Amino acid sequence: MKFVHACAIAALGACSALPAAAQYQANFATSDSAIKYRQGAFSVMAAHFSRVAMMAQGIQPFDQKSAAENAELVASLAKLPFTAFGPGTDKGVPNRAKPEIWSQSTKFRASADKMIAESARMAEAAKAGNFEVMKAAVGAVASTCKGCHDDFRGSLRSE
Amino acid sequence: MKFVHACAIAALGACSALPAAAQYQANFATSDSAIKYRQGAFSVMAAHFSRVAMMAQGIQPFDQKSAAENAELVASLAKLPFTAFGPGTDKGVPNRAKPEIWSQSTKFRASADKMIAESARMAEAAKAGNFEVMKAAVGAVASTCKGCHDDFRGSLRSE
Repeated sequence: MKFVHACAIAALGACSALPAAAQYQANFATSDSAIKYRQGAFSVMAAHFSRVAMMAQGIQPFDQKSAAENAELVASLAKLPFTAFGPGTDKGVPNRAKPEIWSQSTKFRASADKMIAESARMAEAAKAGNFEVMKAAVGAVASTCKGCHDDFRGSLRSE
Repeated sequence: MKFVHACAIAALGACSALPAAAQYQANFATSDSAIKYRQGAFSVMAAHFSRVAMMAQGIQPFDQKSAAENAELVASLAKLPFTAFGPGTDKGVPNRAKPEIWSQSTKFRASADKMIAESARMAEAAKAGNFEVMKAAVGAVASTCKGCHDDFRGSLRSE
């Protein structure tokens, strides 16, 4: 069969591992593929988060169905990028990962877990349709983003 | 409130639109943000698809739970990138989108719909745990990837 070669352009190496909150290392074929994966996941997640956040801020009208769907996507996507910070994935295509991700891995994982948990709460609040609860939850998610960025995201670099 | 500015780094412009199979244009703040979004979604989707495909090919042992979770992610992610091919998003950061995406938009949308539908079938098959059905579904998804790439994906370029 040729279909993997025909299609899976961002192919992983040997890997049947699943994304999960407690799992921070899937096997990617190369460091570059891990970096691109986590950057892609963060990018898509941020786009959907911003849609919820703009409703929470009143920049966009609150549309409960839209909020719920976008927040659910954020909660699903939140689990993904942290599988792609395995050892050796600090170097590769240009990225902003700071060495502290690996030197302070317990703290990094705690930050990630907090973001995943807060995203799940936001999704629940949006699904429930309670604007004020959702707004608070959006703020909590944003705090986890900022906290992790402050500690673990540096300048764009290529090594 | 500052949390959008603090966090939503890949922020969209005015947009409360939802990802959906029938919807091909969300409002992104810039062409670059749309391109990065769709590239990110394709990249993450391809990674998860490859995990299912490698099981289908026998390269990795069939793990039904893993297959189901990864296939479900593919089915969810499949709906996303096609919201980010709005008018004017042909130009921006380096990308491989061919002009035919816009000049043959009906055909492009049909290709996208087919991929979304086949991905959903693959997810159903993986969830049901029938290896042979899943394997066939993986092949069908791969064909939709290849078909669309052949017609609508060109060389990497920046304009």
